[in-house]
Formats: sequence, structure tokens, C-alpha cells
Amino acid sequence: MNNSYNHSLSASSQLTQKSVNRCFDGEQHYYSHESTSTKTPMTFSVYLPDEALAGRRCPAILYLSGLTCNADNVTHKAHFQQKCSELGVIFIAPDTSPRSAGDSDSNDSGNNSHDVPNDERYFVGQGASYYVDTTQAPWAENFNIQSYIVDELYDLLRSEFPIDTIGITGHSMGGHGALLLGFKFPSKFVSVSALSPVCAASESAWGQAAYTEYFGDDKSLWSQADASKVIETVGQQYSSILVDQGAADNFLAEGQLQTSKLQQACEKAKQPLTLRYQAGHDHSYYFIQTVIGDHIEHHWRMAQIS
Amino acid sequence: MNNSYNHSLSASSQLTQKSVNRCFDGEQHYYSHESTSTKTPMTFSVYLPDEALAGRRCPAILYLSGLTCNADNVTHKAHFQQKCSELGVIFIAPDTSPRSAGDSDSNDSGNNSHDVPNDERYFVGQGASYYVDTTQAPWAENFNIQSYIVDELYDLLRSEFPIDTIGITGHSMGGHGALLLGFKFPSKFVSVSALSPVCAASESAWGQAAYTEYFGDDKSLWSQADASKVIETVGQQYSSILVDQGAADNFLAEGQLQTSKLQQACEKAKQPLTLRYQAGHDHSYYFIQTVIGDHIEHHWRMAQIS
Repeated sequence: MNNSYNHSLSASSQLTQKSVNRCFDGEQHYYSHESTSTKTPMTFSVYLPDEALAGRRCPAILYLSGLTCNADNVTHKAHFQQKCSELGVIFIAPDTSPRSAGDSDSNDSGNNSHDVPNDERYFVGQGASYYVDTTQAPWAENFNIQSYIVDELYDLLRSEFPIDTIGITGHSMGGHGALLLGFKFPSKFVSVSALSPVCAASESAWGQAAYTEYFGDDKSLWSQADASKVIETVGQQYSSILVDQGAADNFLAEGQLQTSKLQQACEKAKQPLTLRYQAGHDHSYYFIQTVIGDHIEHHWRMAQIS
Repeated sequence: MNNSYNHSLSASSQLTQKSVNRCFDGEQHYYSHESTSTKTPMTFSVYLPDEALAGRRCPAILYLSGLTCNADNVTHKAHFQQKCSELGVIFIAPDTSPRSAGDSDSNDSGNNSHDVPNDERYFVGQGASYYVDTTQAPWAENFNIQSYIVDELYDLLRSEFPIDTIGITGHSMGGHGALLLGFKFPSKFVSVSALSPVCAASESAWGQAAYTEYFGDDKSLWSQADASKVIETVGQQYSSILVDQGAADNFLAEGQLQTSKLQQACEKAKQPLTLRYQAGHDHSYYFIQTVIGDHIEHHWRMAQIS
């Protein structure tokens, strides 16, 4: 059986198929397309279980990656394919920022998420969009990833793949993105979860460095790009959200993640939160693969009752 | 709980611990050591389930990687940790060859096993030991990986980790290595399996290029380094062996793998073989992760009845 979902057959498709690999009972695909939001080519991966390849609508999960990553890291190292194959879930991994020519590659050599940065300022610019629409030069020209994710890519995915509902998740900066976009645009998503999220970007050293460049001095924009502050403002949006955090994560100890701020925000917002500190686990893809199955099941369950 | 198995506490250890990451209910470790077989430093990874971390003897699997890989590829991308955690299995991944200074890195950027080789002759030399003891200069000085695997590393693993029985498996050139060493040294291993193995190295273009350099014109050495020929010579050694092969693997079509020769050799040797062609699957780590769970179960079952 090889019922490959070949978009090259569709004359109207805006997508260029880059690769197809069979994986469990489904296929791992990569696509690129010209983005109007970023005015650059953008690449994403999508895992399609056989149900989707046969044209049946499936629940989908949008996974936002962390600093320095592109679609490769999670697609190669998080091992989401087996659970998505079992449950019939589509899994989409976009890039973490627009890329200039010659910088399409991420740091995908190790299994840590961002301990070997491309440069000293790995937390600003390429690979570090924070999933916001920036307002300051030079970023505002291309770094419009909020619009890219919740409008452009969202609509493109719905038109190109047999998607039923969409849930959103992510790791680290991508966990921030999942919480931020999930609570800013609750009509778009049926479920939210996060792994090791940056919970209060406007109060972390990484986020402050980025937001200084992306938003300048307008602190109201910083607050609108801080997941915990947004949750506190908009209140409960989901019956429950799931967050996993490694208890031995050095970025937690450094104050980049501030998980307690998310917990406080959810309490104030009366947003039910399942928060699990995983003993001994760090910030790496070894942690991500350990818990990602539970996150896929969370989104799958929420899709069933939506 | 963090009962890390810390070898740095043992004054007698020959191992230098490079990293420890918690993964599922166990830990992924990396070690380096000075090898007497290769006269170089060698690095390997070992996954230790909590049972082993607590000192209980566990069955172990030695996984031999394919061309251009080092321990990273399988450790990051094959997703063996979950099943090893569930069954209480130790999983060891050695490097594929000695390394000269400045060449400790493998091709670990993509998810294909060796489609972006380090150089045009990626099938000879660094990353391409074929798990043999070479006899020709300049290789014979360092390329003694058969001795490294079945004597030096084997004994080192037994002395340093709470290992019960050992099974052997591998992918592509490493599948060749698992079949070859498993049948040449059946007293060392309780079980053998292989993924997409090079079944008749002496008759494949890759193997012929390597063996010309490693053994020169002595074709008896070529035959002793050809898995199918060795199986035919030594006869049945295991109650059953498991081999998975992607049916859409381009290296199968190219004649590098010659799976049918293995099948014929097992028939002549009366060696029971479970050979599965997996529809649509290629040679990549997407294939490896799809079937590796079954291989871990195979070795675990063989360990139970040994």
C-alpha cells in the first residue's frame, strides 16, 4: 500500500513537497511555500496517518518549536509519529522564524534544544520569533509569525490537508507560543498544552532581550506577548490545559521559564491546569520524547469532546 | 529520584562519562574510553533503565550503526528508549569506526541514514569499519573493530554495567555487522536481529570498495567478512533471527543489500529466519523507529528463554 498524499498533483496547491518518508502507519512529509506574512519561503513538516492519507478528516496538532530549532528537530527527535499513527492524529511543525538566505539550517546536531546556539544572541532573530508580530525595524518587515501561524498557515493547512479540529502545543519558546496563541485566539484551537514553556516572556532575560528589539519601549506590547499575562487577562478558555516541566531543567533554575507565574495566572483566570514536574528530567529532546505521547493523547481527547 | 549510575565514583573505571540525560524511566548516558584495539579514543552511548540504575542485571542489546553514523544518530533518532524503559533493557550504541582527530562528528543532520555523506567515498574509512579487523595498510593499524566489539567493548560493558545476556542488532552496514559477529561468535550473544542489513558485503559495491582496501586480494578474508557466507558455513546458531527490510528502500533496488542472499543462506543453514518486507518503507530513521520496538521485544524474549 502506498497511498501517498501527493500535492504535486493539485494545480492549485501553494505548497512544494520536499520529501515523503513512510513512518509507522503514515507518512512524514515536508513542504515549503512562499509566505505573504514573512515575505520569505517557509518550511514545515506534517505527519499524516493513513486515515488522513485516505482523505478522512483527522484532529491536528500544531507544534511550535523552541529557540534555534526549525522543523527538523522535533520531526527527527521528539518521536511523535508512533502515537499519532496509533490515534490518527495529524502533526504539523512549522519553522521558528523567517530565514534569510543561507540560514535555513537550525542547530539539529545535538539532542539538547539550544545549548549549542548558532551565535551568542541565539535568543533574538533567526530561530527566535517568539511567535509575535514585531513592530520595530528591521524585524517588522519579516518577523510576523503570529499572523503566519494563526492566519496564513492555519488557513493553508485547512485547505490542503483533511484537518478536523486543531490543537496547539510547543516546547520552551514554542510552549510560550502555544499558550500565547491558544489564549489570544481560542476560537481557532480546541486544545492547548505546553512542554517546558517560557511562561512569562516579558520577565525572562531571553524574552526581554528579544522584546526590546521587537517592540521597543512599548510595554503594553510586551504584556500582550506574555503568556501568563494574557491568560490572566482573558480568563478560562479551555476545560483543561496540560503542561509538563522537567524538574532538573537548568533553564528553570536560571529563571527563563518561571512556571510558577503560569500557575498563578491560571489560578486567577480559573483556568484548570494540569502541571507536572517530571523528576530528574532536563530541557532536552530526551525529555520531550518522554512526555509527548501524553500531550498527543491530551489533544486527541479534547478533539473527541469538542 | 535521581539514582544516577555515576562511574566517575569508581576509581578503577576506564570510562569517562560525557553526558547523562533522564529519558522515560531511565537515563541516556555517553562514555568515552581509550581503546587498545583501535589505539584511539572511542565513544559509545548506553541507555540504562531504572532497574539497571538500581544495580539489577538486565538483558542488553548491542546496536551497530550504518555508514557515516556515530552513536548519536541512533540515540537521537531511533526512539529505542521508550521500549527499553518498559521492558528493562540496556541499549548500547558504539561508534562505526575509529576517528582521527577532527573527525569525531558523523553526519547527524538529516534523518536519512547516509544520503549526505561526509565525502564521496563515505563507504570506506571513517564511519565505515564494516565491523572487521582489517589486514592492509594503512587501515590495519586502527581499524580492528571486530576485536573492539566482541572482545574489548564486550568485556568493558560486562565489567562496568549490570548486564545479564547480550543480543546484537544493527542497521545497514550495522545489520551486516550484527549478522556477521552474531554468527562468528555465537557464544557471546543470545540473540541476533538486523534492520535493512547489507547481507552479502563481499558482493555489494560498497563492500567491494571497502574490502579491496581492508583485505587486498585475499578473497578468503572477503568471504569471512560476508554475513550470508558465514551463516551458510557455520549453520544454525539461534532458535530464530528477525530481519526487517523496507520494501521501498532504494539501496535494496541498487543491489547494496541483497536480502535474498541472506534468505538463501538461512535456508541452507537451516537457520530459522523471520524476514519482513515493510511496504512503502525506505532506508531512513523513519523506518528504523517504526520497527525497532519489535526488535527490542525479540531480544528481550530471547533473553528470557536463554
